Amino acid sequence: MRILGIDPGLRITGFGVIEKHGNKLSYIASGTIKTLDTDLPARLKTILAGVGEVVATYRPDCSAIEKVFVNVNPQSTLLLGQARGAAICALVSADLLVAEYTALQVKQAVVGQGKAQKEQVQDMVQRLLMLSGKPTADAADALGVAICHAHNHEVLAILGALAPGLAKKGLRVRKGRLVG
Amino acid sequence: MRILGIDPGLRITGFGVIEKHGNKLSYIASGTIKTLDTDLPARLKTILAGVGEVVATYRPDCSAIEKVFVNVNPQSTLLLGQARGAAICALVSADLLVAEYTALQVKQAVVGQGKAQKEQVQDMVQRLLMLSGKPTADAADALGVAICHAHNHEVLAILGALAPGLAKKGLRVRKGRLVG
Repeated sequence: MRILGIDPGLRITGFGVIEKHGNKLSYIASGTIKTLDTDLPARLKTILAGVGEVVATYRPDCSAIEKVFVNVNPQSTLLLGQARGAAICALVSADLLVAEYTALQVKQAVVGQGKAQKEQVQDMVQRLLMLSGKPTADAADALGVAICHAHNHEVLAILGALAPGLAKKGLRVRKGRLVG
Repeated sequence: MRILGIDPGLRITGFGVIEKHGNKLSYIASGTIKTLDTDLPARLKTILAGVGEVVATYRPDCSAIEKVFVNVNPQSTLLLGQARGAAICALVSADLLVAEYTALQVKQAVVGQGKAQKEQVQDMVQRLLMLSGKPTADAADALGVAICHAHNHEVLAILGALAPGLAKKGLRVRKGRLVG
């Protein structure tokens, strides 16, 4: 399974592509899409085209994008929302399913705890994907989102496989949790 | 010149298409794109496809979209931003230029004052476009954005035509204003 992870932003959108074979994760590609300091529609067009090009080049099976946090500055929140909207548009245009994870979930999946620093995420992404060098912060975040989805997808798959047995016991899986 | 106006929203995106021949404005079409209460990527896909279909059907020469105001609830601001981003993506995908106007600018262009009520906008849009019935609030807002662009475009065109004469006097037009 090939997973595309996206770390959205108006100036810099990070992307990371990994493959999952059984328990093994391998690195395929990563990078950033940068927008020039022009008007908003032109910047959104760059993000839409850039993410679209990444999808066309690496042909992922599914995608995941980081949930952005609400900025103290409402105007920045609005701009970031529009940039994230453009990235999601590129993914759904290619008929990809889009999973969403918070930065907390990504850090927990990659480092093991939600309050990890940026450097810890970069270090763990490098180790998990056996990279020769440390990825940039933007690429590491995007690869982290993809890794988070790989783990989450696995848990959901296991729960899915257990579903018939669980149903006999009156249990079922809902939003990744066991409910009675 | 055929103008598409957009009033963006996550639940309801209004659209309005008008034509401008000389000083005369005429109504072509208006309506709304509604999204179901599903996950965000699916809703953005609906907005992207819906606005894309409007563009393909009515083939406007240019477009204009309302600048959204920052909500008191930051989470709502973020959602609205993503919806607006999806609408803009549909416009730039079709290589349309996208002008942006605040609600204040739209009301000033349509009603003549920025503090106009929704009903006044609906009434004036009906009169300006000689509609037989009162348009819905969403359609009226979108048609208002298109009317605002028609007026603004005219002012810019006049200033553009005057430009050579102005240049001789050491003046030029910058962002719609005369500067020395």
